[in-house]
Amino acid sequence: MHEVPFGEILERLRGIGSKKVLIQTPEGLKKEAQELADFLEAKGIEVIINGDVNYGACDPADSKAKLLGCDALIHLGHSYMMLHLDVPTIFVPAFAKVDPIPALEKNLGEIRKLGKRIALVTTAQHILHLERMCRFLEEKGFEVLVGRGDSRVSWPGQVLGCNFSAARVEAEGVLFVGAGYFHPLGVAIATKKPTLAVNPYSGDAIWMNKEAERLVKKRWAQIVKAMDAEKFGVIVSTKKGQLRLAEARKIANLLREHGKYARLIAMDYISYSALEGFDFDAYVVVACPRVPIDDYENWRKPVLTPKEVEILLGIREEYEFDEIPGAERKEDEPFGVSLKGSPAKNADFDRM
Amino acid sequence: MHEVPFGEILERLRGIGSKKVLIQTPEGLKKEAQELADFLEAKGIEVIINGDVNYGACDPADSKAKLLGCDALIHLGHSYMMLHLDVPTIFVPAFAKVDPIPALEKNLGEIRKLGKRIALVTTAQHILHLERMCRFLEEKGFEVLVGRGDSRVSWPGQVLGCNFSAARVEAEGVLFVGAGYFHPLGVAIATKKPTLAVNPYSGDAIWMNKEAERLVKKRWAQIVKAMDAEKFGVIVSTKKGQLRLAEARKIANLLREHGKYARLIAMDYISYSALEGFDFDAYVVVACPRVPIDDYENWRKPVLTPKEVEILLGIREEYEFDEIPGAERKEDEPFGVSLKGSPAKNADFDRM
Repeated sequence: MHEVPFGEILERLRGIGSKKVLIQTPEGLKKEAQELADFLEAKGIEVIINGDVNYGACDPADSKAKLLGCDALIHLGHSYMMLHLDVPTIFVPAFAKVDPIPALEKNLGEIRKLGKRIALVTTAQHILHLERMCRFLEEKGFEVLVGRGDSRVSWPGQVLGCNFSAARVEAEGVLFVGAGYFHPLGVAIATKKPTLAVNPYSGDAIWMNKEAERLVKKRWAQIVKAMDAEKFGVIVSTKKGQLRLAEARKIANLLREHGKYARLIAMDYISYSALEGFDFDAYVVVACPRVPIDDYENWRKPVLTPKEVEILLGIREEYEFDEIPGAERKEDEPFGVSLKGSPAKNADFDRM
Repeated sequence: MHEVPFGEILERLRGIGSKKVLIQTPEGLKKEAQELADFLEAKGIEVIINGDVNYGACDPADSKAKLLGCDALIHLGHSYMMLHLDVPTIFVPAFAKVDPIPALEKNLGEIRKLGKRIALVTTAQHILHLERMCRFLEEKGFEVLVGRGDSRVSWPGQVLGCNFSAARVEAEGVLFVGAGYFHPLGVAIATKKPTLAVNPYSGDAIWMNKEAERLVKKRWAQIVKAMDAEKFGVIVSTKKGQLRLAEARKIANLLREHGKYARLIAMDYISYSALEGFDFDAYVVVACPRVPIDDYENWRKPVLTPKEVEILLGIREEYEFDEIPGAERKEDEPFGVSLKGSPAKNADFDRM
């Protein structure tokens, strides 16, 4: 389904004189990662494969690479997210080969219900087809708006599970193209607009707003469950791109100002089982919003997002999805291999 | 069961001018860690609690402390293990309050079966009672040998699950005092001597040699299961005190010299589930020996220790327990709070 450009990666490694490299891979590219390791070792570069689960561009293994004595990291499956990197890192985004146009064609009737002026968003996997999708929809009479998005995303029109900045445009409704529920649910809650999710693999189209309502109801139930909580564990992630320490401190202080007890807890792998034995009545996850929202059923204590705590304390009225905002994005990432990170000389490569 | 000296820890933190500290705790001291956090925050020091599971002194959270902007780490429950530390670290070993003498008294008949000249070993938790145990046993007519151990342990007579250097003395048999099976099993296999484990909590005494034989049989079964394996994943840990990279490379090279395919895999949390999707027939864990030995039933592929690979390849005949050896230990650790690690000025504190 995906292609990894072995030759280009080798060239980039040779360009920085790399002799020892760590390869990090998402679940779906494990076979390719291993084949890449075989290929590079045959070319005389020592390879270690990172076996820990990778959660995205927010979770680069650059510090582990340094600890292991590697002079570079290959991060498969995602484009660069603005973060300080401890070693030069080659980002190799992965694009799905599926053509989304037939799924759009099939669901034109539903898409028309969004209105004439629509926002188009997708995940990184399908971003290569964004322009073709725009043209197709424009030919069908739509005015298609593609939001630029902020610095947390790599390209206009791209959404993450924690960032819907590219969906915030003056449209009547939002068309999301991609697989999975989490992203379009976030889009629907974040934009509060009619949101249709078209799956390019199955060809299905699903209206997300009912699903979003259902999710928001579940979240309100978590908030209600936390009403009597006195002691809050405020969890901050040690994954570089999820390390929202200032936000966590803000939430802990807010809780204390409202007479609650709050302590900061740092975790790499956030799970309830690791927290058993501490004396907290409820938790706030100031990390990836998927943790409290996707995993709450595995927690024996209420677990909230920062925005939900504001509702709990009566500071906020309307439900809002937990997003990790970026700054202004200066330029888009390339649709292919890119080299980032220290040492200083790599700045030259970045411009190559 | 344990006491954490809050005042002394505060003094040490003030001594290095710490303003922000990360507290790392083992499972059994979570309540105390939280109380310590409350105490220190009341004194004006900002605290973050490390929520990740801690596996021992081999797994200090100093790098996480640095990432979180903390200027010091408090590591509860273990004494210092010789490692480079990214921030000044206060080690607070925890000692059990149980008196082991009654359990020795009760089991004198069994202890006599070890012979007259016996080795005495224990875990860090009971090390404070080592001298009293020696005296008690000597009064009962034993010649008691306490091995010095290497630099991986802190005190003479101390054993770890990965280091039995203190048990290697010219004794007829070994008396282990402590709870749990893993340590005395390792002692029995490592020393190949009659080994009696006396549990100071329950007062029970168990001969470990039958248990050891049973474990070795299970390990041979793993080796046999791996006989037809062609592709080996050689797992190295990114936990500082388990990072046996040279050993992992040696094992990978050995496998290759014997016509096998081998790849290095780096992991922080070693579990089979994270490895599913890679194309390996068997794994070698060059990290904490507990992982392959305690957890193998959760692996769907054979999982071996480095020494077991040597048996598999016909280089070694007799079964040997996987240990992580240290160098010569220059001095013992204090039986209490100690401050270690950079910056350079801390060298003065170490000598305090």
